[in-house]
Amino acid sequence: MSDVMIIGIAGGSGSGKTTLAERLCDVFGDSVCLIRHDSYYKRRDELTYEERTKLNYDEPDAFDTELMREHLAALKRGESIDCPVYDYTVHNRSDSVQHIVPKRVIIVEGILIFADREVCRLFDIRIFVDTDADVRILRRIRRDVAKRGRSLESVIDQYLKTVKPMHEKYVEPTKRRADIIVPEGGKNSVALDMIVERIRRHIESGDKACLQASE
Amino acid sequence: MSDVMIIGIAGGSGSGKTTLAERLCDVFGDSVCLIRHDSYYKRRDELTYEERTKLNYDEPDAFDTELMREHLAALKRGESIDCPVYDYTVHNRSDSVQHIVPKRVIIVEGILIFADREVCRLFDIRIFVDTDADVRILRRIRRDVAKRGRSLESVIDQYLKTVKPMHEKYVEPTKRRADIIVPEGGKNSVALDMIVERIRRHIESGDKACLQASE
Repeated sequence: MSDVMIIGIAGGSGSGKTTLAERLCDVFGDSVCLIRHDSYYKRRDELTYEERTKLNYDEPDAFDTELMREHLAALKRGESIDCPVYDYTVHNRSDSVQHIVPKRVIIVEGILIFADREVCRLFDIRIFVDTDADVRILRRIRRDVAKRGRSLESVIDQYLKTVKPMHEKYVEPTKRRADIIVPEGGKNSVALDMIVERIRRHIESGDKACLQASE
Repeated sequence: MSDVMIIGIAGGSGSGKTTLAERLCDVFGDSVCLIRHDSYYKRRDELTYEERTKLNYDEPDAFDTELMREHLAALKRGESIDCPVYDYTVHNRSDSVQHIVPKRVIIVEGILIFADREVCRLFDIRIFVDTDADVRILRRIRRDVAKRGRSLESVIDQYLKTVKPMHEKYVEPTKRRADIIVPEGGKNSVALDMIVERIRRHIESGDKACLQASE
């Protein structure tokens, strides 16, 4: 077992994968770091703002997956990375980066992180959060309308035009690459406990190894 | 958290649930005990052997679920039980029983253990082992033809007549009651590690409590 454990958490939009990832970060604090696939949306300087708003952000090609793959490999080797920062207000990569130092456990979340076979291979644990499509769209509506101030019609329109077909084409099939499937995501405390104990064991085994080395 | 943890492992015939349950028993030895739903097939003294061979053994009504529920509740309270022993050679409950003393962790496996709502409530962790139907029937053929000496035609016939329709009617819907879904069952070592660590934590927490109480 490599010293650095990488855990991938995939699942559809609104599945609860982000909540699950964040809960794990809450539990383990400084022992883990979180990488979001969304940070790796491609730089699109060649397009106008208007053109960028019309892009399909739910297909594998929207992401700079090669960069994420390099970054995950670097973190696994114990090297720091400069993670891109995506600016949603302009639908483009910003000029800032987030410096991320390697931790014992790297959590990676995103709808399409299992779509690329080589990235998929880097994960020591592959978790797919599986939530019914009706529950997922309702969560998305709540989030985008109530919290992000978008119109209900635009959320529904985007869902039917890209989110749903892309989910069925690209996200759903990657469930077959998962080691475990977690219904309902972050609200599933029984599954959370199980993942927590697995991570705890990995962190403790490292602590023990350090202790033995220093004796 | 109750002192006794009950883990339910459900899934279709040939899914790998028994392998998963047995691996957990291998890891934890005397700290766990295994209850099989099959042990609770109903006593059918009123039928002839011929009649009993024709019964449907893949529906909830084939099991003495009330007795299993009482037994699980007793084990949870820390009481021993006398588990029935089913005799497959005569398709009936035998007169012997297996005395089972309560352990810190009780593992229960069977295709239909999540079908009864009250039994389902007794489980602290509900695991559904999910394996493709084609792989499941192939495993069943291997087991029943190669190991149990049944004819290929009789295995296929029984599968199409009862196993498949009963799976779709009764087993598959209970997947929705699971806390985690494990693809491929006992061969899935990543999922196994996760379940192992969760159980280990439960057993160790009891050891610590005992230690503190004796100090």
